[in-house]
Amino acid sequence: MQLNPPHTLKEIASFIQADFAGEPNFIISGINEIHRVVKGDLTFVDHPKYYQKALNSAATTIIINQKTEVPEGKALIFSEDPFRDFVALIKKFKPFETASGMISPTAIIGAGTHIQPGVFIGNHVKIGSNCLIHSNVTIYDYCEIGDNVIIHSGTVIGADAFYFKRRPDYYDKLHSCGRVIIEDNVEIGANVTIDKGVSNDTTIGAGSKLDNLIQIGHDTIIGKNCLFAAQVGVAGCVTIGDNVILWGQVGVQKDLEIGNNAVVLGQSGIAKSLKGNTTYFGSPVLEARAKMKELAMMKKLPDLIEKLEG
Amino acid sequence: MQLNPPHTLKEIASFIQADFAGEPNFIISGINEIHRVVKGDLTFVDHPKYYQKALNSAATTIIINQKTEVPEGKALIFSEDPFRDFVALIKKFKPFETASGMISPTAIIGAGTHIQPGVFIGNHVKIGSNCLIHSNVTIYDYCEIGDNVIIHSGTVIGADAFYFKRRPDYYDKLHSCGRVIIEDNVEIGANVTIDKGVSNDTTIGAGSKLDNLIQIGHDTIIGKNCLFAAQVGVAGCVTIGDNVILWGQVGVQKDLEIGNNAVVLGQSGIAKSLKGNTTYFGSPVLEARAKMKELAMMKKLPDLIEKLEG
Amino acid sequence: MQLNPPHTLKEIASFIQADFAGEPNFIISGINEIHRVVKGDLTFVDHPKYYQKALNSAATTIIINQKTEVPEGKALIFSEDPFRDFVALIKKFKPFETASGMISPTAIIGAGTHIQPGVFIGNHVKIGSNCLIHSNVTIYDYCEIGDNVIIHSGTVIGADAFYFKRRPDYYDKLHSCGRVIIEDNVEIGANVTIDKGVSNDTTIGAGSKLDNLIQIGHDTIIGKNCLFAAQVGVAGCVTIGDNVILWGQVGVQKDLEIGNNAVVLGQSGIAKSLKGNTTYFGSPVLEARAKMKELAMMKKLPDLIEKLEG
Repeated sequence: MQLNPPHTLKEIASFIQADFAGEPNFIISGINEIHRVVKGDLTFVDHPKYYQKALNSAATTIIINQKTEVPEGKALIFSEDPFRDFVALIKKFKPFETASGMISPTAIIGAGTHIQPGVFIGNHVKIGSNCLIHSNVTIYDYCEIGDNVIIHSGTVIGADAFYFKRRPDYYDKLHSCGRVIIEDNVEIGANVTIDKGVSNDTTIGAGSKLDNLIQIGHDTIIGKNCLFAAQVGVAGCVTIGDNVILWGQVGVQKDLEIGNNAVVLGQSGIAKSLKGNTTYFGSPVLEARAKMKELAMMKKLPDLIEKLEG
Repeated sequence: MQLNPPHTLKEIASFIQADFAGEPNFIISGINEIHRVVKGDLTFVDHPKYYQKALNSAATTIIINQKTEVPEGKALIFSEDPFRDFVALIKKFKPFETASGMISPTAIIGAGTHIQPGVFIGNHVKIGSNCLIHSNVTIYDYCEIGDNVIIHSGTVIGADAFYFKRRPDYYDKLHSCGRVIIEDNVEIGANVTIDKGVSNDTTIGAGSKLDNLIQIGHDTIIGKNCLFAAQVGVAGCVTIGDNVILWGQVGVQKDLEIGNNAVVLGQSGIAKSLKGNTTYFGSPVLEARAKMKELAMMKKLPDLIEKLEG
Repeated sequence: MQLNPPHTLKEIASFIQADFAGEPNFIISGINEIHRVVKGDLTFVDHPKYYQKALNSAATTIIINQKTEVPEGKALIFSEDPFRDFVALIKKFKPFETASGMISPTAIIGAGTHIQPGVFIGNHVKIGSNCLIHSNVTIYDYCEIGDNVIIHSGTVIGADAFYFKRRPDYYDKLHSCGRVIIEDNVEIGANVTIDKGVSNDTTIGAGSKLDNLIQIGHDTIIGKNCLFAAQVGVAGCVTIGDNVILWGQVGVQKDLEIGNNAVVLGQSGIAKSLKGNTTYFGSPVLEARAKMKELAMMKKLPDLIEKLEG
């Protein structure tokens, strides 16, 4: 998320009562989890395995649990528990705001948009023009929806990211502060769930159509004119190109990429990135013809084994 | 859908400013998508591959993008874009009606039926007697529910069909005008989605029981006393017989038939029609014993390959 | 469920107009379905295959459709249709109570707990302190929720068990009277469904985290600090240990046990109990390395068959 207005290194460090290294007036203009950071961002790292990744990332301020040299043009904040302090900053700058009613007076709703009864629209939500939001939809705070969007009943836009840190005795929650962005001309079916980004945006590209009971994880970016059939599940931090078709009940693991124009047949399970312009099938997924060949081989197995054993 | 009252060929053609061939007073009594049409219906066809199917169907008026001879006893309407004009007619005769509150005053609700708080009931909905509709259910316009039906919370009855036409740069939506019909003694779990028919009815047969988080696609017809476990997904235009059991997470592709008394084990994927009185398993599905044999063979593979390679 | 106050054998038998064998003042302090009974409970049995199981269970009063000798320290109630009479007793002692509004005045809600708009909270529900219940959640009667629990929008806690008895011409419903217990520090995603117990409790152990669109069946018990990814489905009467991780779209059949620290990879299907401290994959599931080996073998099949046939 952006800090508006930006804060200085000294101010941010003082909020979490931490020491820092760097120019006290160094500017921090955003707070973001490592996987998508830009210049001006503060991020955190708490495992030696990821120190170099964090220090070399685009982020210019890093909360870290190890005294180390300050990289050129950057700043460090030292914390015995960077995760805890990162969450504390998110809660400070984006605290949960309770709702005063079903439609927040802070929401901005465009001309020609119709909201059916029973819809919850959180604080600071923006909805474009000529949309139709069916009954019992929930839109969490700060989500943004374009023009000509249809959302069917029971769908939940912007619930928290499923993102926990394993502590010795419990799971610690990363308080998410990102948004969901639904671009123009998207249609979303009933009882779909699209989680907000951890600190950035989960995005559904213009013209894409999602059927019912679909899950889209945090920070996932879906391209334009995609078609997802019912019960598809896409984990967090996935990047899907344009014109991708996922048939029913397909599952996509986190942190993958799927290229433009890929087609994935029903019930397939995707555990590796897929290049575009190809049709896939199976769990785990193969190029569809290879999978079909494999299935045909399977049918020959009984005869084969009988021959060998007989 | 039925046109009530019926209209003449001349009237319908003039609404979409199209030329026609046939008797100007030829009667059009319904507007339906090709897969389920009866005498009196208007349908559309826009691809040469399907011209003969449409011209030979039970439909008696066809919107077509090709000048052709009028079949005996029928009429044609000529359009450069039959899909666009078919949608225009649906929107004219069944426009979206906004809701004035959570329960439409036009809904008909039978004696002894109890509606919990937070339920949305659209315009022209009919609900029979002695039903129990739990909180936060949504029932879209025109759906019909029989007697002694239980619907659990969060379920959405009658959202739009997932039916789009691929245009060069976008997906064009077929505005659906069908209904969902839930027959007597059906029980539907929580957060289920049952889409309305494109122009006909999606039907859940008497006595059938659906668990939670199930998807039923548009125009699908489910027989009597079926049992579907949680997270089953059935695509559009499927016809399922009586006493069919689908265990959890089974997926059924569109346009198939499943015979009476078929049983499909959990997570199976159905891509072809299945005859009844048989148990199935696998993705893609096989007769269950054949699949079990295949799985047993798989276990022998490592030894077999070792022997051959050794 | 507990009977509060307890009733005598004579009273209970008279409610269903049935003969009984045993001391008329014998105490019945609970009514429970066979799979989880304790001393003082009444249960039922209607199939000879299960007579001995019921008669030898911890339950001390049994409704049975066979004249038989009364076991030591127990009582019998004779019925031509034990299922029907068991349901009649449940309906008598725990009748459905209609709601007077979105939040029942009989609900108990702890300090610091925030309920967003559009939430339905049934009769006799208890919610602890410092919880956050997001909009359009439904919590059925009698469910209990601990402290520091977060429930996201559209989730349904406590819908009826999917439990039907096959009659010659229809399915007969076991009216469920159990509860859902959500322990402290649990987080539940959006559009999740957790069914109430048939007569006992469905339990989500302290610190467990459930993602979106998950199904948890009746009477299932989930341990502490489990992590379930989106679209997981767990059937009824499953017992899952502590620290179990189920990745996306995993399906678990009924009546199984999964040991502590088990990890099950995405889309796996579990049809047998699994011991803990092990990673699993596949449908049906295998130990993950065995499954990976099997998948590697599959890739060798085409060459193998060519060699053998060539």
